[in-house]
Amino acid sequence: MSNPTAAILIIGNEILSGRTQDVNVQFIARRLAARGIRLEEVRVIPDVAARIIGAVNELRAAYDMLFTTGGIGPTHDDITSECVAAAFGLPWEHEPRTFALMAERMGETFNEARQRMATMPRGAVPIENAVSLAPGFTIGNVHVMAGVPRIMQAMFDALEPSLPAGAPIAMRAVHGFGVLEGNIAAGLTAIAARYPALDLGSYPFRRDDRGGVAIVAKGTDVAALEAAIGEATTLIAAQDVPAVPGEPAL
Amino acid sequence: MSNPTAAILIIGNEILSGRTQDVNVQFIARRLAARGIRLEEVRVIPDVAARIIGAVNELRAAYDMLFTTGGIGPTHDDITSECVAAAFGLPWEHEPRTFALMAERMGETFNEARQRMATMPRGAVPIENAVSLAPGFTIGNVHVMAGVPRIMQAMFDALEPSLPAGAPIAMRAVHGFGVLEGNIAAGLTAIAARYPALDLGSYPFRRDDRGGVAIVAKGTDVAALEAAIGEATTLIAAQDVPAVPGEPAL
Repeated sequence: MSNPTAAILIIGNEILSGRTQDVNVQFIARRLAARGIRLEEVRVIPDVAARIIGAVNELRAAYDMLFTTGGIGPTHDDITSECVAAAFGLPWEHEPRTFALMAERMGETFNEARQRMATMPRGAVPIENAVSLAPGFTIGNVHVMAGVPRIMQAMFDALEPSLPAGAPIAMRAVHGFGVLEGNIAAGLTAIAARYPALDLGSYPFRRDDRGGVAIVAKGTDVAALEAAIGEATTLIAAQDVPAVPGEPAL
Repeated sequence: MSNPTAAILIIGNEILSGRTQDVNVQFIARRLAARGIRLEEVRVIPDVAARIIGAVNELRAAYDMLFTTGGIGPTHDDITSECVAAAFGLPWEHEPRTFALMAERMGETFNEARQRMATMPRGAVPIENAVSLAPGFTIGNVHVMAGVPRIMQAMFDALEPSLPAGAPIAMRAVHGFGVLEGNIAAGLTAIAARYPALDLGSYPFRRDDRGGVAIVAKGTDVAALEAAIGEATTLIAAQDVPAVPGEPAL
């Protein structure tokens, strides 16, 4: 079972200015890994039409699917939806079902600004969700979601069952407290060479005032993962410092 | 005074897998804004040589400067330095001063793995710093830094005085608790049109159990920023809900 690939495009001046700490990447990344979808790239770009159109077209061509976050609200800086329409060369028009639903629920407050949230590329499928009356949408292999985390998460929840799935990408880890990367590098290189299908990473960490190295293996073959982490545990043990299985909160 | 442009390239399987929450973007973004450098793009890519080389060449051509984070340690998955050399078409070789310093301090523990950290593209200028004996480096307009936040931050501290500067990009904000974006969208569009040199953003927020909208203006003209936020404050006040100046922790 192969693994579909994905990218995330964050349309967000507020991330680029440092005003807001992004938390959407980690949420989406974990959910994709659990579904066996490889997240291959993340981009953050400003709310500029040419940049959005260019990045959507580049990323939707390069990966099996693209998730965008941000820029689908009712205000002047929310231009993602019309840019995605432009990227696909499609008309941007009222989505009948969404328009009717929002008109009914919002009554006279369904003004011009809010009507923008019911306007989508022709043929888009709304991503209805439990939090926001205004949906995201899917067009082709592009899934357009809100930037506000709890709304994005609700949209992802709604979208997830329709995504393709691959073999789950599992992770195993071992932490060597007091271990120095430079002392185990040669041994790790040898382990990595024995398990070419795994992604074996080495990450220095510090937790309270104790430091060390986390060895993390990822892949779809759980037996290989456990064997590789077993070898890494032996390597750490040979350093005469404690090896702690699993993944503490760092 | 114009504003130089920048991009960040995060070389990090651990971000793409969702294992690690990135915190480097926000740190660098804020420091760049204070120095008047516009952060125009962030990319996260895996530890794959062709991807690193391609992204380095694309981003260093597109922006005035590029910052990379991650992949400069001693282990097999640390390939950023040699990939940057390949991107520039330069030999990757021992940097004499760094090599001598690390050899002296590390003695017999300066093994082959650690010698990789003293190996750089020919002509690179080391980024010596207060935390790590192994430096980052600058080659051309590319600044190569560690991924571990406290080491990256020390490298940025060391690097910062040598960066070009522009007019500081200031930010002013007002928060309307209880305000709905759809009710002020038309008014905001008019304000944005009156201040075309500013970047005026509208961001729904939720703080404890209260929600509202943050209106954020960014730009180099502080008088214009304050005038625009003054108009936004009036717009919020007309909603008959409280306007709170400044930027609470959301």
